[in-house]
Amino acid sequence: MTQMFDELSFETLGARVADDPVVFLPIGATEEHGRHLPLGSDTFQAVDMCNALAQRVNGLVLPPLAYGVSTSLRDFPGTISISHQALNTIVREILSELVRNEIRKIVVVSGHGAQVHMSAIKSACEEISDASDVRIIALCDYDVAYRLRGKQGIPAADGHGGMIETSRMLAVRPLLVSDDRPSGQDTTPDFFIARHRKRYMTEGIIGDSTKATAALGQQINLYIVEELVKAIRAVM
Amino acid sequence: MTQMFDELSFETLGARVADDPVVFLPIGATEEHGRHLPLGSDTFQAVDMCNALAQRVNGLVLPPLAYGVSTSLRDFPGTISISHQALNTIVREILSELVRNEIRKIVVVSGHGAQVHMSAIKSACEEISDASDVRIIALCDYDVAYRLRGKQGIPAADGHGGMIETSRMLAVRPLLVSDDRPSGQDTTPDFFIARHRKRYMTEGIIGDSTKATAALGQQINLYIVEELVKAIRAVM
Amino acid sequence: MTQMFDELSFETLGARVADDPVVFLPIGATEEHGRHLPLGSDTFQAVDMCNALAQRVNGLVLPPLAYGVSTSLRDFPGTISISHQALNTIVREILSELVRNEIRKIVVVSGHGAQVHMSAIKSACEEISDASDVRIIALCDYDVAYRLRGKQGIPAADGHGGMIETSRMLAVRPLLVSDDRPSGQDTTPDFFIARHRKRYMTEGIIGDSTKATAALGQQINLYIVEELVKAIRAVM
Amino acid sequence: MTQMFDELSFETLGARVADDPVVFLPIGATEEHGRHLPLGSDTFQAVDMCNALAQRVNGLVLPPLAYGVSTSLRDFPGTISISHQALNTIVREILSELVRNEIRKIVVVSGHGAQVHMSAIKSACEEISDASDVRIIALCDYDVAYRLRGKQGIPAADGHGGMIETSRMLAVRPLLVSDDRPSGQDTTPDFFIARHRKRYMTEGIIGDSTKATAALGQQINLYIVEELVKAIRAVM
Amino acid sequence: MTQMFDELSFETLGARVADDPVVFLPIGATEEHGRHLPLGSDTFQAVDMCNALAQRVNGLVLPPLAYGVSTSLRDFPGTISISHQALNTIVREILSELVRNEIRKIVVVSGHGAQVHMSAIKSACEEISDASDVRIIALCDYDVAYRLRGKQGIPAADGHGGMIETSRMLAVRPLLVSDDRPSGQDTTPDFFIARHRKRYMTEGIIGDSTKATAALGQQINLYIVEELVKAIRAVM
Amino acid sequence: MTQMFDELSFETLGARVADDPVVFLPIGATEEHGRHLPLGSDTFQAVDMCNALAQRVNGLVLPPLAYGVSTSLRDFPGTISISHQALNTIVREILSELVRNEIRKIVVVSGHGAQVHMSAIKSACEEISDASDVRIIALCDYDVAYRLRGKQGIPAADGHGGMIETSRMLAVRPLLVSDDRPSGQDTTPDFFIARHRKRYMTEGIIGDSTKATAALGQQINLYIVEELVKAIRAVM
Repeated sequence: MTQMFDELSFETLGARVADDPVVFLPIGATEEHGRHLPLGSDTFQAVDMCNALAQRVNGLVLPPLAYGVSTSLRDFPGTISISHQALNTIVREILSELVRNEIRKIVVVSGHGAQVHMSAIKSACEEISDASDVRIIALCDYDVAYRLRGKQGIPAADGHGGMIETSRMLAVRPLLVSDDRPSGQDTTPDFFIARHRKRYMTEGIIGDSTKATAALGQQINLYIVEELVKAIRAVM
Repeated sequence: MTQMFDELSFETLGARVADDPVVFLPIGATEEHGRHLPLGSDTFQAVDMCNALAQRVNGLVLPPLAYGVSTSLRDFPGTISISHQALNTIVREILSELVRNEIRKIVVVSGHGAQVHMSAIKSACEEISDASDVRIIALCDYDVAYRLRGKQGIPAADGHGGMIETSRMLAVRPLLVSDDRPSGQDTTPDFFIARHRKRYMTEGIIGDSTKATAALGQQINLYIVEELVKAIRAVM
Repeated sequence: MTQMFDELSFETLGARVADDPVVFLPIGATEEHGRHLPLGSDTFQAVDMCNALAQRVNGLVLPPLAYGVSTSLRDFPGTISISHQALNTIVREILSELVRNEIRKIVVVSGHGAQVHMSAIKSACEEISDASDVRIIALCDYDVAYRLRGKQGIPAADGHGGMIETSRMLAVRPLLVSDDRPSGQDTTPDFFIARHRKRYMTEGIIGDSTKATAALGQQINLYIVEELVKAIRAVM
Repeated sequence: MTQMFDELSFETLGARVADDPVVFLPIGATEEHGRHLPLGSDTFQAVDMCNALAQRVNGLVLPPLAYGVSTSLRDFPGTISISHQALNTIVREILSELVRNEIRKIVVVSGHGAQVHMSAIKSACEEISDASDVRIIALCDYDVAYRLRGKQGIPAADGHGGMIETSRMLAVRPLLVSDDRPSGQDTTPDFFIARHRKRYMTEGIIGDSTKATAALGQQINLYIVEELVKAIRAVM
Repeated sequence: MTQMFDELSFETLGARVADDPVVFLPIGATEEHGRHLPLGSDTFQAVDMCNALAQRVNGLVLPPLAYGVSTSLRDFPGTISISHQALNTIVREILSELVRNEIRKIVVVSGHGAQVHMSAIKSACEEISDASDVRIIALCDYDVAYRLRGKQGIPAADGHGGMIETSRMLAVRPLLVSDDRPSGQDTTPDFFIARHRKRYMTEGIIGDSTKATAALGQQINLYIVEELVKAIRAVM
Repeated sequence: MTQMFDELSFETLGARVADDPVVFLPIGATEEHGRHLPLGSDTFQAVDMCNALAQRVNGLVLPPLAYGVSTSLRDFPGTISISHQALNTIVREILSELVRNEIRKIVVVSGHGAQVHMSAIKSACEEISDASDVRIIALCDYDVAYRLRGKQGIPAADGHGGMIETSRMLAVRPLLVSDDRPSGQDTTPDFFIARHRKRYMTEGIIGDSTKATAALGQQINLYIVEELVKAIRAVM
């Protein structure tokens, strides 16, 4: 049977809720990811992780929120960045409705990890968690993926659109990954709130995407799933 | 080539924007739709309409927003209703980012038509339209579909989850439509802001879903597309 | 004895509240209504309807709110349009204070019917109704009046400042209605969020005001009152 | 010809604006005023002052806003108190619309003088004044009236619902003033943000309303008008 | 032992709270105070008053909030004015946290007395006081100091940066007071919301600072402390 | 001459601004820091760093903001946590006023580093930086200090209230550091939004404070200053 929340009728959903499922909310972004990756990369990865996790822990997957806070990449075409407040409000309201629906276990997986973006999500989770008896996990899947930096041939400085992300996209959306692969870095001066970020990040990525492989991506994705299954089981 | 906004790289998107495309934002809802239809019915229909329209008018389709204002159906399991302000803010910010990206033609298609929901969307559109040179169309596809009520054997009182909606879903997502079909009506007293709407709408739908057919649904969907292509061409 | 809320002393009001009255909140607008009707037409009609209704159902009438959401007519001199949020907030706070005052029956009558305006009012009512045991009715009196379109010689396309509205104003404020009567229509393309509405509504009205008569207005007003007395008695 | 803004058609208003009128916005309150005075006393006085002033300085009078910030009197039946933010927002939006309508001279007269209430109004005025070329005067008419305390037999401690206010109401709304007149005082300890104000203000008024006369009220009202005509002419 | 809230460890604070202390929140401003006084004059005075009061009534002093609403002096260099909403929100949240910490007696002392500024503070206090069992006093110390105007050789028109304020600063921060002393007045027309306040207050002060002495300042400060100790003891 | 912004008169400040100074805004927190450190530790450190930096780069130091977002430590006595929105708003407004004062170089130093707290600050900085020509650096001084973890005998897991922080406080506020030193760790399960954080952080600190020395603290503080002087000079 489907594990997609929005594919269920209200009656079936009601029955599933009685079974105390873990409900997953995937959050992505619509933002520049280098010339080789699609704008929706973060959304695709978050959705895929949630789908894989839901199969492991009696889960249901909500429709994704594909818009996030992406201020630093707004100079590039295609980036659609919403405000901290907008993201915080919509996440808080969705979670609040889940609680009203008597859902007791929630996992929010963001494919995008910018500090302001994650803070909007986590603050919403904290507020809901403080006010009710729900158990919430919230994370960016890159919090797990980046534990692999400096290992398995992955450079320590790998980041946005780099070797890890390109590999993960090759594993799940190969047709959307171009062969024309850039390599770049973030040269923003330390702690500087730069007005025009693009000048400090000419290729729009951090790392070397030429080294990416689907096999590595698959391995990373499995690693993330295993780690998160553990994290979920630890508290839910 | 794909017409999905989030499947393009930033460079390809930049090139497409130079060609002055119509950008479609599909907005749905996650709400009760009778025991025969999935919670995401409004989202699925909005996305499908946008996809069909984009093929006709040089369009690009943004990732959908699957959460809307569904206050009147909150008594039923599975309804996730966000506030007017949350919806209004996120739509306004997405449109504002499109304008910043030099997109000049925007069509917002909502599959959900509740007054407060549509007002949140239209106010956001008005604000953006007043402040820039963009051309915006915003509608609920049921504004078009309901023109057929009282015609072609469709009852005048058909509504939420009824003959038209069930037919449309049979045409595009047949596997998600159950054969166990209800028939219902809205018995809310005139103008009453009822505290518990469910008691006035026992089956959660308005109309007779047993009369629905995939053929009618296909015909209605074609009608909507033709009407909207005309509406778009009239101003864009 | 007076039925005007603000003409009572606090002690008299306290005594009246113990008698479980229906409290009416009239909401109008300050907006263009054609060259023959005053800017306050919607306020005058809402107040008059509330006064008439209060006499029939043990009512008290609050001071009117004369400012509404009138975005589409802002191009014309004299239109004062407040935001959805401003209207929503003030209505919600007034209703909340009524509830705090132990008032249990509230009727909000708006003389203005724009979608965003009504949505601001209805959302406020829903929020208060969800949070307490009060019974609330909210409507635009034109929701009733327009049931007469296509009947009694009234054209189906009659609308803002047209035959019905001009007749109603002739019945209650004849001195404020000019003999110089326009006839107009709304030519805004379907679903278009037009930047400059005035160009699509040159006379600022919808319908033929030359056909209006005080007698018809009186008859319509009586019809509205009878329908609303029924609606109020049905739930209060 | 009428000086009521909302009684004019849009065309007549447009013509009047070309003549550079002073536009008056009366703001009142719906709050306890002792057992002898009506809840709307502040609104009635503000409207009457605006009407009188408009005759002297080529003025137009907007429909009043009858709801203010009245937190300290919420313990008494009939008080309807809105928030600082609600009042501030609606006043700012109304003024902003006046400026958009090319009105250049605005006078806001509040009949209610509570600090939070006046601050909401003045902050709105400051914001509009800072952003455009309009000239704005904002005041509570009691700022003028209380200059007479300690003179003409008026006690220095006269205040809310006392000798001055009762006299002013006798002058303009004699039928709404009861003969049963209280005398009271504010015994709230200095600087204390009391939770239950009513216990410190048993009669709900400050001063001795038995000494009030219509003649004194008329004299005070004339004094206020003369002082304000001077103040208006000094800057407009 | 220290009475500074932020110098205590959490354990010591917890122990002190059990002893039911009066917690003082000093609020200042960063704004023009004449060429002879520092921008932080209001903060310094508020902090000093709180320190003196805390010694008398078993008090703890919170870190000051050094930013207030100073709209009228924004034309002068160095004025940093925050909005009513910002000040109101931060004060409300700080007080709410004190209540959550089971603190039951709070005194808010502002060194700045502008109406909008004090209203932001008082509204926050009222909201917290209405919602819990805490006892709150809120004031501007100039509410007490100005009782001395017209006495002891102090002119009735003394105000911002004048004889009283300069004397008080000489008493507590003599090194920050310049010998180059201005004398000025506020010539803003009555009730006028002036766009450029500086033109009406050329020296930026109200009163004659040349007459100030440290001895007078010390005497005034003692007077304020005595009066406030009485006010605190009356309700706490 | 003083480098404290609030100790200058408006005239002196005006003269200093003409000299293009770097203006420092120290932001702290009032929160639990273990039983050995004062609640204001973050504020004290931020202020001290700003003072030291200002001496090196022609700086002026604003009064500190001593309240931050400290949600995770609210279970401990003495923590005063404001919301993301409150902090974001006040920082944005202060920066906006600095820009209005023609200040062109701003450094915001937070002594507290929680993600939501830093995100509130950085979002405010980004918004101001995007809208004007100012150059802004924003950081938590622990972003620099923690580069030393795993070096010089400092454990890799050192954190809140641990060896580094205790050492730094010993260097600058020895009298406020108790000899009774705890050692603790954060046992919150990965990614869990725990409702009661205290249970996962029994001593309220992360690391071993017994190993702290004033000498190490001094060395770390010097390191931070040197690194930040470089960072400032790189862009200002």
